[in-house]
Amino acid sequence: MNNQSKETNNSASVGIVETQYYQPAEKIKLESGLELEDITIAYETYGKLNPEGNNVILIEHALSGDAHAAGYHSSEEKKPGWWDEMIGPGKAFDTNKFFVVCSNVLGGCKGTTGPSSVNPEIGKPYGLDFPMITIGDMVQVQKKLLDYLGVKSLLCVAGGSMGGMQVQEWTISHPEMVKSAVVIASTSRLSAQGIAFNEVGRNAIISDPNWSGGNYYDGESPARGLAIARMIAHITYLSEESMHQKFGRKLQNKAKLDFNFDINFQIESYLRHQGESFVERFDANSYLYITKAIDYFDLPQKFGSLAQAFRKIQAKFLVISFTSDWLFPPEQSKDIVKALMKIGKEVTYCDIDSPYGHDAFLLEYSQQIKIIKSFIKEVSKRNLPDSTVR
Amino acid sequence: MNNQSKETNNSASVGIVETQYYQPAEKIKLESGLELEDITIAYETYGKLNPEGNNVILIEHALSGDAHAAGYHSSEEKKPGWWDEMIGPGKAFDTNKFFVVCSNVLGGCKGTTGPSSVNPEIGKPYGLDFPMITIGDMVQVQKKLLDYLGVKSLLCVAGGSMGGMQVQEWTISHPEMVKSAVVIASTSRLSAQGIAFNEVGRNAIISDPNWSGGNYYDGESPARGLAIARMIAHITYLSEESMHQKFGRKLQNKAKLDFNFDINFQIESYLRHQGESFVERFDANSYLYITKAIDYFDLPQKFGSLAQAFRKIQAKFLVISFTSDWLFPPEQSKDIVKALMKIGKEVTYCDIDSPYGHDAFLLEYSQQIKIIKSFIKEVSKRNLPDSTVR
Repeated sequence: MNNQSKETNNSASVGIVETQYYQPAEKIKLESGLELEDITIAYETYGKLNPEGNNVILIEHALSGDAHAAGYHSSEEKKPGWWDEMIGPGKAFDTNKFFVVCSNVLGGCKGTTGPSSVNPEIGKPYGLDFPMITIGDMVQVQKKLLDYLGVKSLLCVAGGSMGGMQVQEWTISHPEMVKSAVVIASTSRLSAQGIAFNEVGRNAIISDPNWSGGNYYDGESPARGLAIARMIAHITYLSEESMHQKFGRKLQNKAKLDFNFDINFQIESYLRHQGESFVERFDANSYLYITKAIDYFDLPQKFGSLAQAFRKIQAKFLVISFTSDWLFPPEQSKDIVKALMKIGKEVTYCDIDSPYGHDAFLLEYSQQIKIIKSFIKEVSKRNLPDSTVR
Repeated sequence: MNNQSKETNNSASVGIVETQYYQPAEKIKLESGLELEDITIAYETYGKLNPEGNNVILIEHALSGDAHAAGYHSSEEKKPGWWDEMIGPGKAFDTNKFFVVCSNVLGGCKGTTGPSSVNPEIGKPYGLDFPMITIGDMVQVQKKLLDYLGVKSLLCVAGGSMGGMQVQEWTISHPEMVKSAVVIASTSRLSAQGIAFNEVGRNAIISDPNWSGGNYYDGESPARGLAIARMIAHITYLSEESMHQKFGRKLQNKAKLDFNFDINFQIESYLRHQGESFVERFDANSYLYITKAIDYFDLPQKFGSLAQAFRKIQAKFLVISFTSDWLFPPEQSKDIVKALMKIGKEVTYCDIDSPYGHDAFLLEYSQQIKIIKSFIKEVSKRNLPDSTVR
């Protein structure tokens, strides 16, 4: 163990980082059969690529994430990247040893081309002219970026929730390239209940008159609809237990009920805040497209069975779930594990006891870090025996 | 067992019934301290009141219910009242023996005064000038109706969900009058998660520009917001298991995914239908007021503890929950049972194994009927030993 890894997580930062942009020259042929041209991919990298191009860890973000996974954009930035607890010198994804890459997904609104981007054909934002995208399309675009960066093979692809869907897709579409996969709080297909929550969120956006059929970029945005969608989603990210512990039936800034439609309970205040702050940082159309990509993802259906889907993979898997996650319940992680075991693939599974629901993958760090560190160490020993990076 | 009770439930109907209306002369003093005058109570009755006025079963409806609990309003009506499976000759609530009463709740929109009713002071609908109401206020109004009908004591008060809240309130506010209580799929206080879902639903209504601060009765109604609220609620009424069994990831009228924002999955179609049909029959402001009354209901908080709340009751309780109900989970029914047992009150508890979630109380009839019949028989033997009704 070197000095750096003894530091606390907070001080072991990748420091100041910058989002970069890559524009592939060629068109992207999407799963739907449609094409996209002139796309931009926003990405960040931490650590150094070795000459062999094989010390790479690819990080996949969830629905509302972005390329800024670690470090700070400036000394003024108060909050670091969204997975800063996991990525940095001596951390689970150790930037002293590995070249860590994270990019914003296709269809997003954080620098990578999405429905709010300018459609080169008409010089205006795509809106609903943006083609439907899939998890496979997101992965395909990431592959272009990795080719450009000189990445030859992926020591690990890791992500939670929708990130875990991309991880699975990577192992299947590029079996020879991916050495290991970390799938956290995810599924190989969303449940009917998950689709239902997404659908109500989309309906809230589409029902907002400001949505205007998706052409709202010149006027007011459908902020109310998007806030409702986010509020719904937020309930599904928490467990009833954690809500109870955090809020219970506690009143907001008052001693007793005052019989009106103001905010009465703390949970109401929390949800409204979540909804209102989200609209500042997210595009409503991106929300529509990305939730559809999540709903569409269905490996058992696409390949006949989950075991069949994983038949050609070479990656060793680490699957992590959280006991109180009811949106991507442990049972669905176990389905992945069972399918892999059935066909003799290497897989480690851990169901972490946590009260934090689906959000646990962004909160429950100490155990995740321990498990992932040991997994990466093992994978690294096998795949990078003579690594010279630091 | 007489001939009638051998008939199937469908044929044993109370037949053609009519909603009636009662207007108490006096003002209603609400829990908030405000007053309401000139109120109307919509109600239906089935069976005959005995001369002693003590063969009465009071039925309490849930959030979106009404006074029409059994029978048909005309020979053309296709669907009978909402609890027709339970109420009728020879049924669980046997109209051959008992006088069954059901009224629409205060704040509702099915004949009883609510925010869509005309405010006598200004000759226009109340809108948000309607005072906040509580479960206690609903019960108080029902008491006026029962006095008018000549009801002296209640052999049983029964209801599911919000209906079960009113049942508990009845046993506490009129301990001498209530002989037995059937509390189904209910709670003595809603969870933080329950409040959260209600709050998002209310936000969807309030965010609809047509809501216009609640003054929409002259123009278009906030149908989109109300539909979203109903869709959210509907997800919570079903279990993930029943959604999976009923819809799974089945596509709607198509063989494969077609990459657009149309309805792709059957669950989406089902939810949209639920939302759209609800706005035809329910008032958005009533939805706001009634969900607030549900959120406010908190017996442990009001009385210091649940045992303290039930200290003076004389009713024998039957508490029923459903294993897959995650909105009003069995644990909350058990809290009621434990509190009653702690202070030596009579209580029977049954957790019915069902995949249908909260909706089970309107679907899972065979076991409910068996349990309730036997409960009513026992209560009846004790309280009406010489009953002469039929």
